[in-house]
Formats: sequence, C-alpha cells, structure tokens
Amino acid sequence: MIESRHTISVLVNNQPGVLQRVAGLFGRRGYNIDSITVGASEEPGLSRMIIVTNGDDATMEQIEKQLYKLIDVIKVIDLSSNPNVEREVALIKVASEPSARPEILGVVETFRASVVDIGPSAMIVQAVGSTDKIDAIVELLKPYGIRELSRTGVTAMIRSLK
Amino acid sequence: MIESRHTISVLVNNQPGVLQRVAGLFGRRGYNIDSITVGASEEPGLSRMIIVTNGDDATMEQIEKQLYKLIDVIKVIDLSSNPNVEREVALIKVASEPSARPEILGVVETFRASVVDIGPSAMIVQAVGSTDKIDAIVELLKPYGIRELSRTGVTAMIRSLK
Repeated sequence: MIESRHTISVLVNNQPGVLQRVAGLFGRRGYNIDSITVGASEEPGLSRMIIVTNGDDATMEQIEKQLYKLIDVIKVIDLSSNPNVEREVALIKVASEPSARPEILGVVETFRASVVDIGPSAMIVQAVGSTDKIDAIVELLKPYGIRELSRTGVTAMIRSLK
Repeated sequence: MIESRHTISVLVNNQPGVLQRVAGLFGRRGYNIDSITVGASEEPGLSRMIIVTNGDDATMEQIEKQLYKLIDVIKVIDLSSNPNVEREVALIKVASEPSARPEILGVVETFRASVVDIGPSAMIVQAVGSTDKIDAIVELLKPYGIRELSRTGVTAMIRSLK
C-alpha cells in the first residue's frame, strides 16, 4: 500500500477533553500527526480540527472509523480526496544587520510575506501559504540566521463553491 | 485575583505523545484552552506549542509548574508578560451572489484579506491577523452567509529584536 499525505477535517463539540481524546487516539495507535490545528467553525459550539498525517488507504480508513467512535466527534472528512486550499502562518525572527536588509526584503517581497517588526539587528517576518511555501521561505532565510520560528500548522478547506 | 488572557509558548521535543500529555494536563486540571497550535520551531527535533488560555496569576504559575513536570517539555514562556505579535489565519467560505460581490470585496480589501477561490455563488476568503481582527472580519461577512469557517488558532512571538 502506498503511503501519502492526508489532510483530515474533524468537526467536534467544543468540549474540554476532546483534544486529549483525539491526540490520545493517534498516540495509542501510533498514527503520526504532522500538524494539528483547532479553531472555531461556522457553527457556534463546534470546533474544527485539521490534522495532517501520513498513511496508506487502509490506515486512513481505520483512523476515520476510530475518530467516529470518540465522544464529541461529529464529522470526519479526508480533504485530500478533493481539490482543497491549505494555509498556515509562520512568524520568523531573522537576524538582519542593516547591510543584509535589502536581500532579506527581496525574499519577503517574492513570497508576498510582510515585515511585522524591525529592530537594530533582527526583524520579524510574517509568511502565509501552503506548507511547501513556508518551508521554502524558511529555507531561503536560514543563511541570515533564524533566531526564532513559530508556525500555526495547516488549516484547510475543500474548494467546491457551487 | 483577576483573570486575563494569556498566550503561552511551550517548546517540546517532537515526540509522539507530547500533545496528548499537554492536552491531558489542561483537561485533568480543568484549565481552559482557547486555542492551541503546534508547529516546527527553529531547532530541528523541537516543536513549539502556542496555547491561549484564561486565568489569574496563581493559575498561570500552576500551569507553568505542571508543564515543566511533563516529559519532553523543554521551555515554557508566558508571552503575555512581554510585547508580542500574535497571528492566525482563517479560511472563510462566504456566499457571494454576483450582486453581493462588490460589497464583500470591499470588506476583504479593508482587512487586507484576499480571495483564494471564487465560484458562481461563493468565494473563499483568506484572512490573517490577530484573533480580534479575524473575529471582526468574520462578523462583517456573517450577513452574506458563512458556509464554512476554518481557523488555525494563534501563533505568537515576543517582539524583542535586540
């Protein structure tokens, strides 16, 4: 069976303990979590978790079945089986002596990122995009010295707009 | 004691089970989690969790102490005691009949958000900013009909740039 990257949307009741149960299920069964985000959904009282994981089709089916068995899990969708939009935001604190600034600002502009704060020897860059895009800008800023990196992990949505 | 919003940064070893332990600690002790994000940090093998919670000073001190007792927790910082940058990204699928589009695009532009997909009767808006800013754009788009909302939760960083 071929392993591939899957992005799963899990709609849950916003109750204490639900994150622990979902994280526990992945931990116990040895399913990998690349990233997990939890945020408000369009329904009051319901939150949406977006989990990025790796596995073959049989594993994904198992994960889906096990999630549905958990208290407070309402709906599970594998977004990867549809065209979808994925976005995360990263804050990158990069060393930036005045002489290096023009080069760094060139990278920032190319990625349509933005500078949210600047000091004598460092700046904070905000970058938004797919995981691949964030990986790419982080890689390009590395030579200047990344002092701190903070990423949200991915949120996602199916593109269907009928 | 006065309750207030706190944004805590928790640097952890990227090991299976660490999210479950952190979520478990908050669940067991009844500490509230408003939002939690987990992403790669500047150190290979280390992830950074950003947890938004509410509590008075004594509770925050307890949370910090309890977190340090957990396996794989390396460093805990209450970012709220310093000037900091907070950002999250939201994907908002909003109903948008052609006649409503100019109004919606006006809101999108005002918030420096962007349209990432558009169909006959709906569009997907990407908004980036503080929790308050995202709350505000969601509120303004509500009258048009929000079909789906997916938010990452907050990532954050101290502004210090010395």
